[in-house]
Amino acid sequence: MNPVRAAFTELLAARWRDANTLLCVGLDPDPPRFAPQLRAGERAITDFCCAIVDATAPYVCAFKPQIAYFSSERAESQLEAVLAHIRRAHPQIPVILDAKRGDIGPTAQQYAREAFERYGADAVTLSPFMGQDTIEPFLEYAGRGAFLLCRTSNRGGDDLQMLDVGGERLYERIARLAAATWNRTGQLGLVVGATYPAELARVRALAPGLPLLVPGIGAQGGDVQATLLAGCTSNGTGLVINSSRAILYAGADENYAQAAAQAARATRDQINRYR
Amino acid sequence: MNPVRAAFTELLAARWRDANTLLCVGLDPDPPRFAPQLRAGERAITDFCCAIVDATAPYVCAFKPQIAYFSSERAESQLEAVLAHIRRAHPQIPVILDAKRGDIGPTAQQYAREAFERYGADAVTLSPFMGQDTIEPFLEYAGRGAFLLCRTSNRGGDDLQMLDVGGERLYERIARLAAATWNRTGQLGLVVGATYPAELARVRALAPGLPLLVPGIGAQGGDVQATLLAGCTSNGTGLVINSSRAILYAGADENYAQAAAQAARATRDQINRYR
Repeated sequence: MNPVRAAFTELLAARWRDANTLLCVGLDPDPPRFAPQLRAGERAITDFCCAIVDATAPYVCAFKPQIAYFSSERAESQLEAVLAHIRRAHPQIPVILDAKRGDIGPTAQQYAREAFERYGADAVTLSPFMGQDTIEPFLEYAGRGAFLLCRTSNRGGDDLQMLDVGGERLYERIARLAAATWNRTGQLGLVVGATYPAELARVRALAPGLPLLVPGIGAQGGDVQATLLAGCTSNGTGLVINSSRAILYAGADENYAQAAAQAARATRDQINRYR
Repeated sequence: MNPVRAAFTELLAARWRDANTLLCVGLDPDPPRFAPQLRAGERAITDFCCAIVDATAPYVCAFKPQIAYFSSERAESQLEAVLAHIRRAHPQIPVILDAKRGDIGPTAQQYAREAFERYGADAVTLSPFMGQDTIEPFLEYAGRGAFLLCRTSNRGGDDLQMLDVGGERLYERIARLAAATWNRTGQLGLVVGATYPAELARVRALAPGLPLLVPGIGAQGGDVQATLLAGCTSNGTGLVINSSRAILYAGADENYAQAAAQAARATRDQINRYR
């Protein structure tokens, strides 16, 4: 990785401003959903992801590869190739590795090496469940970002995150910790689903300056207008709004990349309408 | 993987009984700590792990590879080789893949494929933070086990797990859920650190029949006697007591496997003294 690469927060802020977009395209490659002529190749996942990246790059502030889709296909080397391609062809666009890691210190160090040294990601998603000392090994990589799970977009997100922990919900406690004591280096952000705009607004109130990674629009049904009203900072940024399946599989034939570009542009425009 | 392989709980119960051991050896391969003549080889991680496995097999009820140590070294194929070796050479010993995954349903399905199809693990560790629907894709693999993080052995475990969620702690709520509504298929277990014996006793009271994976003895300083008193079931089993570094690196020279075997036997005997 280029040693002079800017910090994640700088890359993201520049991209919000220069490309005028809050859209993040999630890279969840699922070979059975690829266009038929792509499916057979040994590098099909790389080819698919790089075609999506090149087609949607003008419309995004970040890319977010989801590592599970690569690991289940024995395709870690293809994930390396996709990140190398983004850095080479689109060096201004930061990459968030969606891995949701969380483990004790020595193990967290290994996961941080995986995310930042092996793959060269600019930021990573983490689970806060095991506490602050499991986050810190990632923050030792100066300039790299870490988004902590806070209020997730799935149905079961209620099971623990909505518990009352003494006058506030567990997700509110996490937002407060991430905005204050846990964030001495300014590298933290939060993951808050678009499916819960009231809670997104609450997180924004508790963490006025943090970047929020917001999955859940598109296939998961989150409302774009409500997300923007709830989550934007006062200057109309602060959000990394992710869409994966609705963009990746917008077209099922050989024009899939063109269809993805159209879907990304339309989603960016829809988002900008409410900023 | 052999389609007639027994269920994880059956393999574990048979091993507790037949080999008279509650010890689990954690496979956290860290090449800088390998004996000098091992370090250079391309398959050094496989060679190290398989030598440890063969030397310690008589003394263990399970092996627990920690995937981060393989991922940071670009060694997924070596992890595949280690699991294949265990199944071939020690088919009676179950393998718990320590991965602490946790993600929304479609992504959880990919992680379940990774753990159970790609690696052929018998059980996996998971984070409960995102709720029940993120656990279920793993339970669809009949017979495979899933240990949910409950009360972890690190210092920061207090940050969220000890919060009062309405008359009980968050870790107690997780133990109750895992022992009842979340466990309709009987595939769940819990992860509870040896560094907190009082809380281990509380988890055992809330989940009388669940297997508990207990890290934190050895390098992390947990007390073996207190762990056994707090965590055993009424028949003197129920625990999978993990030690990693204290066994893997018991010897630093070419006799490392022999030193590991001696450390494993001594730890098994120390555990059995208090059952």
